[in-house]
Amino acid sequence: MGSGKCRYTVLAAALVAALLMPSEALCQGMSRREIAIPDVLGYKAVMCDFHMHTVFSDGRVWPDVRVGEAWRDGLHALAITDHVEYARHKDDIPKKLNRSHELAMGPARQAGLILVKGAEITRKMPPGHFNVIFTQDTDSLDTPEWRDAMAAAIRQGAFMFWNHPGRDEEVWKAEHTEIYEKGWLQGVEVVNGSRYYAHAHKWCLEKNLAMIGTSDVHGTIDMSYDRAAGEHRPVTIALAEDYTEEAVKDALVSRRTVIYWENELIGKPEHLRAIFDASSVEVLTEELALKPKGRAEMQVRNTSDVSYELELDGEADDIWARGKVTLPAHRTVRVRIGRRPDTAPGEKTIRLPYRVSNLKVAPEQGLQVELSIRVKLEES
Amino acid sequence: MGSGKCRYTVLAAALVAALLMPSEALCQGMSRREIAIPDVLGYKAVMCDFHMHTVFSDGRVWPDVRVGEAWRDGLHALAITDHVEYARHKDDIPKKLNRSHELAMGPARQAGLILVKGAEITRKMPPGHFNVIFTQDTDSLDTPEWRDAMAAAIRQGAFMFWNHPGRDEEVWKAEHTEIYEKGWLQGVEVVNGSRYYAHAHKWCLEKNLAMIGTSDVHGTIDMSYDRAAGEHRPVTIALAEDYTEEAVKDALVSRRTVIYWENELIGKPEHLRAIFDASSVEVLTEELALKPKGRAEMQVRNTSDVSYELELDGEADDIWARGKVTLPAHRTVRVRIGRRPDTAPGEKTIRLPYRVSNLKVAPEQGLQVELSIRVKLEES
Amino acid sequence: MGSGKCRYTVLAAALVAALLMPSEALCQGMSRREIAIPDVLGYKAVMCDFHMHTVFSDGRVWPDVRVGEAWRDGLHALAITDHVEYARHKDDIPKKLNRSHELAMGPARQAGLILVKGAEITRKMPPGHFNVIFTQDTDSLDTPEWRDAMAAAIRQGAFMFWNHPGRDEEVWKAEHTEIYEKGWLQGVEVVNGSRYYAHAHKWCLEKNLAMIGTSDVHGTIDMSYDRAAGEHRPVTIALAEDYTEEAVKDALVSRRTVIYWENELIGKPEHLRAIFDASSVEVLTEELALKPKGRAEMQVRNTSDVSYELELDGEADDIWARGKVTLPAHRTVRVRIGRRPDTAPGEKTIRLPYRVSNLKVAPEQGLQVELSIRVKLEES
Amino acid sequence: MGSGKCRYTVLAAALVAALLMPSEALCQGMSRREIAIPDVLGYKAVMCDFHMHTVFSDGRVWPDVRVGEAWRDGLHALAITDHVEYARHKDDIPKKLNRSHELAMGPARQAGLILVKGAEITRKMPPGHFNVIFTQDTDSLDTPEWRDAMAAAIRQGAFMFWNHPGRDEEVWKAEHTEIYEKGWLQGVEVVNGSRYYAHAHKWCLEKNLAMIGTSDVHGTIDMSYDRAAGEHRPVTIALAEDYTEEAVKDALVSRRTVIYWENELIGKPEHLRAIFDASSVEVLTEELALKPKGRAEMQVRNTSDVSYELELDGEADDIWARGKVTLPAHRTVRVRIGRRPDTAPGEKTIRLPYRVSNLKVAPEQGLQVELSIRVKLEES
Repeated sequence: MGSGKCRYTVLAAALVAALLMPSEALCQGMSRREIAIPDVLGYKAVMCDFHMHTVFSDGRVWPDVRVGEAWRDGLHALAITDHVEYARHKDDIPKKLNRSHELAMGPARQAGLILVKGAEITRKMPPGHFNVIFTQDTDSLDTPEWRDAMAAAIRQGAFMFWNHPGRDEEVWKAEHTEIYEKGWLQGVEVVNGSRYYAHAHKWCLEKNLAMIGTSDVHGTIDMSYDRAAGEHRPVTIALAEDYTEEAVKDALVSRRTVIYWENELIGKPEHLRAIFDASSVEVLTEELALKPKGRAEMQVRNTSDVSYELELDGEADDIWARGKVTLPAHRTVRVRIGRRPDTAPGEKTIRLPYRVSNLKVAPEQGLQVELSIRVKLEES
Repeated sequence: MGSGKCRYTVLAAALVAALLMPSEALCQGMSRREIAIPDVLGYKAVMCDFHMHTVFSDGRVWPDVRVGEAWRDGLHALAITDHVEYARHKDDIPKKLNRSHELAMGPARQAGLILVKGAEITRKMPPGHFNVIFTQDTDSLDTPEWRDAMAAAIRQGAFMFWNHPGRDEEVWKAEHTEIYEKGWLQGVEVVNGSRYYAHAHKWCLEKNLAMIGTSDVHGTIDMSYDRAAGEHRPVTIALAEDYTEEAVKDALVSRRTVIYWENELIGKPEHLRAIFDASSVEVLTEELALKPKGRAEMQVRNTSDVSYELELDGEADDIWARGKVTLPAHRTVRVRIGRRPDTAPGEKTIRLPYRVSNLKVAPEQGLQVELSIRVKLEES
Repeated sequence: MGSGKCRYTVLAAALVAALLMPSEALCQGMSRREIAIPDVLGYKAVMCDFHMHTVFSDGRVWPDVRVGEAWRDGLHALAITDHVEYARHKDDIPKKLNRSHELAMGPARQAGLILVKGAEITRKMPPGHFNVIFTQDTDSLDTPEWRDAMAAAIRQGAFMFWNHPGRDEEVWKAEHTEIYEKGWLQGVEVVNGSRYYAHAHKWCLEKNLAMIGTSDVHGTIDMSYDRAAGEHRPVTIALAEDYTEEAVKDALVSRRTVIYWENELIGKPEHLRAIFDASSVEVLTEELALKPKGRAEMQVRNTSDVSYELELDGEADDIWARGKVTLPAHRTVRVRIGRRPDTAPGEKTIRLPYRVSNLKVAPEQGLQVELSIRVKLEES
Repeated sequence: MGSGKCRYTVLAAALVAALLMPSEALCQGMSRREIAIPDVLGYKAVMCDFHMHTVFSDGRVWPDVRVGEAWRDGLHALAITDHVEYARHKDDIPKKLNRSHELAMGPARQAGLILVKGAEITRKMPPGHFNVIFTQDTDSLDTPEWRDAMAAAIRQGAFMFWNHPGRDEEVWKAEHTEIYEKGWLQGVEVVNGSRYYAHAHKWCLEKNLAMIGTSDVHGTIDMSYDRAAGEHRPVTIALAEDYTEEAVKDALVSRRTVIYWENELIGKPEHLRAIFDASSVEVLTEELALKPKGRAEMQVRNTSDVSYELELDGEADDIWARGKVTLPAHRTVRVRIGRRPDTAPGEKTIRLPYRVSNLKVAPEQGLQVELSIRVKLEES
C-alpha cells in the first residue's frame, strides 16, 4: 500500500467522476408530475413531506435520493428527519447528525425544491416520537432528557409535531398536556405512511393542532407506494403565501394545512370547500329546461387528482337528483336530475345538497357541499 | 456526555429496533411480478442482473434495497458490483470492499434470491471497466496494476465481462486481445442501462463471448425505469440447469444467455427460437378451410412479456398472409391469410416464413421463424 | 331514377365490399386477453355471458359487435338475448326475432366462440324478465301469455333463469314458486350489470338454482366497463367437460357455475376452494426455520386475475401470522409469520386459517381456506 | 295473433321503457376526458371527427353510440357520414339516408355536442370517396352521376373533403383537378383511421387544402383504438372563434385545422408553434448561473397530451445543450445545458434551436422551435 496505490486511485477517481455525472445519473429518464390540487383563498398549495429517513439514521437511501423522489412526485418542500438518537448503520457510517441535510442541499437547490432542516426526536412513550422542522442544528438535540431536546429545538425556532401517535386516545398522557400547554406541540400526524389516526384527527380539531400527513419513508418511495397502481405518498398541503420556507412555516403555524392521502383530503371545512368549489369541480351545464316530471342531465367536471365521492344529504326544492355521484379525477360526468311532481313553473337556481365522503372534516364526517344548477321549469 | 447518555441511547435503540422491523419496512406493500419468458430446452430461465452499485461505491442506496428491487422485479439472481477503486461517499462511509455484499446476504436469503459476489474493476481505457462475479474477496482486487486485479479475480474463480464497452469497434485494443486470449474475458455488456452496443453484439458472435445485459443502476431502479410506463431494467437470462449459483455460472461459462431489454430479446438463434416456438407463441387454429381465392383468419397466442414484431420473409406455397403482424404480450390476435389463385385442392400444413425484428440474432437482424397452419384447400 | 341507378348502385356496392372487408374492419387492431382463472376439478373454466342486446331489440350495436367484444374479453361462449316483446328500433328495423342470432353465427364461427341461441322473455312483475338459452326458435315465444312463452322455450330444451330479480326477497311471488316447482326456473342472476343481488344469492343456496352473472349490455361493453381502469363485465364461469355447447349446458343444469364479478368470485365452496387451492394460490416457501420467538416470511404467489383479500379466521398452533393479507393478481407477496412463546421444538406443517372475503360462498360470507407452511421450530 | 297480442305488447313496451332509460343506459359509468391541447391565437381548439358510420350504411352501431363515444373521447363536434350509395344492412334496415343524423340529434343536444350533418359520397376511383359536411339533405346526393351528387352538396353549402386518397400522388387525376378548380374540393384526409397519407399532406401545402384527420370508424371506437394502451382516434382540431357549428365551418373554410393523430400534431407552422410555445411548453427555470465550463439544468414543463420529441437543430452562442430531449405529456423534465469554453462573462437570453419531430409541418419535417433560457455567465 505505497505511494503507487495512492496515485492510481486518484487517477481512477478522476476518471470515474468524469464518466458518471452524479446528478445526471440521478435524474436520467426521470420526470416530474405536478399534483393537481388547486391554489385557493389566495394561497399557493405547497406540497410537502416533512418525515423521511436516510442511511444516516435507519433509512436505506442516500439523502439526494429523497430530493429526487420529492421532485418527481410533484412536491415543493421536504424535510429529511433522521432520528437524533438512532443510527442503525453506525458500524459503517459514523454518526453525523447534520450530515443528511447538508448532503441534500445542493441537489435540492438544483431541483428548485425547498429543503427544510429537521430531525426526529425519538424517545420511549410517553412522550414518543416527535419531528422538529425549521431547526438549525441537530447535534444540540442529542440530549439525555427529552425535554432538553425539545427545548433546544424550540429555541432554534422549530415547528414540532407528534409522529404516529399510538393506537387510540389513551396514548395522550400528562407529558403531552405539558408540551401542548407550553406551546411546543403544534401539530400531529393524522396520517403516517399508510395509516390514518382518527384520534389524532380529533385532537387537531379540539386543540387547534396542525394536521400533518407524512410518508415516514425508510426504503425507497417506490417500494412503499406503487405508482403503477396509482398510489402516492401522504402529502401535507401547506396553504402558503408563496413558495418559500418562511411562507410554509407560517402556513403550519397558522394551521393552514390539508392532508392529501390516498384518494382523500383531510382538513378544515373552509379549506376543503375552497378546493372543491372554487376550482376543481365545476357544473358546466348553464341551464336545464324541465317539463313537468321531466328529467335531464347536468355535466360536472373535476379537474383535480382526487376522485370525489358524493352522497345526497338533504333535499332541494322542486328537483330530485341522483343519490350517489362519483366525480372521477380529470373527468366530466353527467348527473341525472328530475323535476318533482306538482311543482310550479319558473326559472331558478337549485342548490343540490351533497356530502363528500372523501373530503374529511372530522373522523367519518364528509364535507357538505352544494352543486348549483339553473333550471327552467316549463309550463308543460 | 457521560454514562447517562450511553444508557438512554441504548434504550432508545432497543425501542426503535422493536418498532421498526427492517425487513418488513422494506417490503411493506411490495409484491413481486415474475417475468413471463419461458423455460426452454430443459433449462430454467434464470433472471439475472449482475451490475449494480450501492452507497459503498458511488450508488445511492443501501445494499438491501438492491435485494428488494430485484425481488420485486422478478429476478432470481443478482450481484452487487461496487467499484473496487472508487468510493464516492468515503468522507461518510469508510471504504470496505466486501461490505455491500455482506450486508445484502441476509435479505437475499430471506427473499430466496441468489446473491452472487462481485465487484467492478474500474480502470482507464484501455482496458476500461470490468465486472468480475463469483469472486471470494474484493480486497485482493484493489491493486495498482489492472492485470493483477484481474488475475486475482480469475484465481478466485471469477467470470469476467467487459462493461459499457465504448463507442465502436475501435475501442478493442491489444489489451483486450490479451485478456481474451488468456481466457479471462468471457463476456461483454451488449446492453448497459439504456444503451445497446452493436459492436459488442458482433464481438459476442465472432469471439463466442457471453452476451450480458445489466442495469448498472446507481440511484433507485424506479428512477431509471418507469414501471408505470411499462419499462423494466435490462436482464440477463441465464439458461441454467437449476436455480443455483453453480448452475447460473455454468450457464454463463457455456454461453447460454439471452438479454431481455426493453421489448427485445438478444441471443443465439437456437435460444430465441426455443423461446418463441416451444412456449410463448402458439397457433391456436387447428385447420382452416379455404375455397379458391378464399380468406380466413388464424388465431395466434403469445403468453410471454415480449410483444413480437413479425414481418413476412419469403413466400409459402398456395397461401398468402399478412405482411406485418404484431403479437402483443399476453394476447391472442387473428392473422389474415388467403388462398392464392390457381392452387390445387388438398389438405396440407403451410409454414409461413416470418422474421421477428425484436428477436435479435445479430445487429439489425431478426430471427427467422415459421407459423404453421393446417389448411384444407377445397374444390370450390 | 331508372335502371341506371340500379347499375351504378350495384357497381358501387361491389367496390365498397372489396374495399371494406367486414370482419377485418371489425377486428382491426383488436386482440384477445384470456381471463386467468384456472380449470379445476377436471373441468374447463368456460367463460360465458348469456345476457346481451343488439339493435334487434333495445341494444345499440349490430350483432357481430357482441361477438367481437366477447372474443376480445376472453369469453368462450355468449348468447344474444334480445327481448321477445320489445323492439325499440322497430320504426327502422322491422322486428325479426331470430335475426340477431343468425347474423352473429358467421362471426362467432370465425372467432371460434360458442354462440348459444337465446332470448329474453320480458313481462311485467310478476314474474318479470327471464332469459331462455339453448332455444331453437324465438318466434314461438312471442305469445300473449307468459306461461305459454316459457313453456315453448322449455319444450325447445331451454335453460331458463330469472333476470335482475328486483329489490329484495319480497319479489318472489306465487308465480315464481310455480315455475320453480315445474322445474322451469333453473337459475337466477345474482349479478346483473353492475349490481349484486344478495337475496338472489340466498335463493341459489336454498333452492339449488344456478348462480348466473351477466352484463345485460345494451350499449357497447366499453361504455359500461372502463377497461383502462381494469373493469370487466360480469362473467358466468361454467365448469364444463369441454368447450362445447352441450358441455356448457350440462354445467348449468348441474349447477357448476361461478360468477366472476369485479374483483370477486361467487360460487359453491367446493368450486371456489378448488380455484383458490389447486391452482391460483401457491405457498412457494418450502420450509421456514424459526428460533424461539423468531419471525420469518413465507412467499405466496397468486397467478389468477383476482386479487384475494384474506383475513385470519382462527389460530394455528405454535405460529402467529399476519391478520390481513392481500394476494394481488399475478403477484407474489411475503407474509410475516412468527413463533409463539413457549412452543416446543420440532418440525411440522402449520395450517393457517384464513377467510377470503372476495370468494363469496353466501352473502357477506367469505370462503375459509388454509395456507400451509412447513416450519422447523429450532431449539434456540 | 289478434288484438290480444297487441295489448300485451304495448304493455310490455311501456314497462320496458320505464325500466330502461335509454340515455342513462348509454352513459352509465361513462365519463368524459378533455383532450389537453390548448386554445391558441384567440381561437378555441374545437375537437372534431367528421367521418364515421352507423348501421344505416356499413357501420355496426346505432347513431347514438357515435354521440356517446364522441362525448367520452373529449370531442366537441362530430358528423355521421354514412355512405350515400351503400347500405350494407339493407335486408334488415330499409335505406333512409337522413335517418342516422336525425337519430343522433337528441343525444347530441343532451350531451352538449355539435352534430354536423354529413354523408360520404362513395364512388369508384376516380374520383373515389368524398365526405360532404354541413349539408341539409342526403337524399339529393343519391344520384347516378358523381358530379351531380357533389353539386347538390355544394349547393347545400357543404364543405367537401377527399377520403383516404389512395396509395400515392398518382391517384390525383383530371377529375380531382376539375373539382379542385371548381372550388368544390376544400380538404383531404391526411390521416384516416390508422394511416397517414404523405402525398395528401403535400397536396394540402401546395393547394391550400384543409388538413383533415378522421377515424372513419365502422365498429366501435374501442375496437379500433385501445384506450387502455393510451390510443386515441384521429381528431381534426378546428381553430374556431367559438364552440358553434358556424365557427367550426369557418375554421375549415379558412384552413385553420390541425390534425391530432397518435402522438403527433400535423398542421401549419404558425398553428403548431402557437400550440407549442404559447401554452403547452414552458421553461420554468428563470435564470441559470454558469461558471466557465459549468453545467446546469433547466426545467421544462409540458402541460399537453402530446409528448414532444425534440432534436437540436443548430447551435446557440456560448451554450451547448442536450441533443435529444423528450418532453413527456403532463410532465416536467430537466434539460442539461453547459457553458462552452472561452466564452465571455455576462448575462443574456439564450435561444436553443430545436426541431420537434412530431409537430409535423410537412412530410418528414418537424417544426423548428426555440427554448429560451436566461443565463448568467460568471467570471470564474
